[in-house]
Amino acid sequence: MNLILIQPDALDPQGRATLPERSARHVLTVLKGHRGQTLRVGVVNGRLGTGVIESIEGETVRVQCELRETPPPEPAIDLLLALPRPKVIKRIWAPMASMGIRRLFITNAEKVERNYFDTHWLDPAKYMPLLIEGLEQAGDTRVPEVRIVRRLKPFLEDELPGLCPGQARILAHPGGTPNPPNQAGAVLLAVGPEGGWSDFELAMFDRLNFSRLSLGWRRLRTDTACVALVSALRNMLAPASRPP
Amino acid sequence: MNLILIQPDALDPQGRATLPERSARHVLTVLKGHRGQTLRVGVVNGRLGTGVIESIEGETVRVQCELRETPPPEPAIDLLLALPRPKVIKRIWAPMASMGIRRLFITNAEKVERNYFDTHWLDPAKYMPLLIEGLEQAGDTRVPEVRIVRRLKPFLEDELPGLCPGQARILAHPGGTPNPPNQAGAVLLAVGPEGGWSDFELAMFDRLNFSRLSLGWRRLRTDTACVALVSALRNMLAPASRPP
Repeated sequence: MNLILIQPDALDPQGRATLPERSARHVLTVLKGHRGQTLRVGVVNGRLGTGVIESIEGETVRVQCELRETPPPEPAIDLLLALPRPKVIKRIWAPMASMGIRRLFITNAEKVERNYFDTHWLDPAKYMPLLIEGLEQAGDTRVPEVRIVRRLKPFLEDELPGLCPGQARILAHPGGTPNPPNQAGAVLLAVGPEGGWSDFELAMFDRLNFSRLSLGWRRLRTDTACVALVSALRNMLAPASRPP
Repeated sequence: MNLILIQPDALDPQGRATLPERSARHVLTVLKGHRGQTLRVGVVNGRLGTGVIESIEGETVRVQCELRETPPPEPAIDLLLALPRPKVIKRIWAPMASMGIRRLFITNAEKVERNYFDTHWLDPAKYMPLLIEGLEQAGDTRVPEVRIVRRLKPFLEDELPGLCPGQARILAHPGGTPNPPNQAGAVLLAVGPEGGWSDFELAMFDRLNFSRLSLGWRRLRTDTACVALVSALRNMLAPASRPP
């Protein structure tokens, strides 16, 4: 935990907050928190800064915050992901938050089994703590926007132009070009199911001007593939704009 | 499982083999294996090709193999990794095998807790099945060579020159350059503990001509960082040499 995230409504007008239970436990047991100690604190979807411990009563830790920083800007990557097995989607939330995905569209596909959508790992009450955990690891405050899409075709054809106007569209697919997309702005990256997209779906992505991108011949498990693709893509997009 | 790996000694001179138990179960339950069915098969550290099911008796599956392919060449990446928490090292084996690491040096560091070395996840009997799982996922046969290094300094100073002659040396570290290493051949990538390298260790890496590489300001969990770094690095190294 490189950052402690608090909800905006936990902050009073004087910048004081009570830490969430899980963070308080971390502060008390791992960081050996004591009065006067300075913590790295951020507000969910907001600013970053410091929080000085004002009081500790039992497991209740109150901090006085000073939040002056915004997270550094980065090329925005939206991820469209065909829903993998429950065990794998569970593993994706925290790393994707850490890597800094802006929006996450979890979609159906021909090779996605229907019952995957019944998993509780698509329930915000289950995945939100994992997103927060990933942000606290990375030191970011921006929660990816999540949308569950059960019908891929109407989403791609009807909604995407409005949701991602002018964004480069990239389809991760074996046999795609290894060349970097020539693009400075935001990118939409589509990652298929473990069995791959169907021919019908591939034709649809082609028609909608998705260019194909391949990282090589290796077939990676979806959670590994997502991290590898986002890392390679971010590197291709803005090798010079990252802060030191 | 995109490939079934068999040990070299499981193959008789006529190219027949009995599948390992775990693979046989996968073939029978997931692939609904039947006589005459063709499987993708490879030999550990050897060739790739096909295996036709000759017989199924109970859970014993025998295949006739034809192994004509070698895995495609790739830029060689050796990873020197300060041992993370047991829970995290467990998660690293399969993805690193999938990503195609050549050698994996698991080392001590000042900020590595001594008792981490007691984990059974450093026992070949525990990690080898995870490496095989990663290779079967990726479609590769080359098992990373693993070495556990308990004393970092003599390893770096005395052994590394002989082990990695002429290899570019790269230290993943926040504040490093985001610029790609100018290097076509093999690379040694060093990844620190979750608390970072100590000043003493950083000075040592500097003295030994490690150039620093940063993927940006995000602090990633070690398993995520390894995948992200290897992906970015492979992309920087050989964007044109990957097969389509």
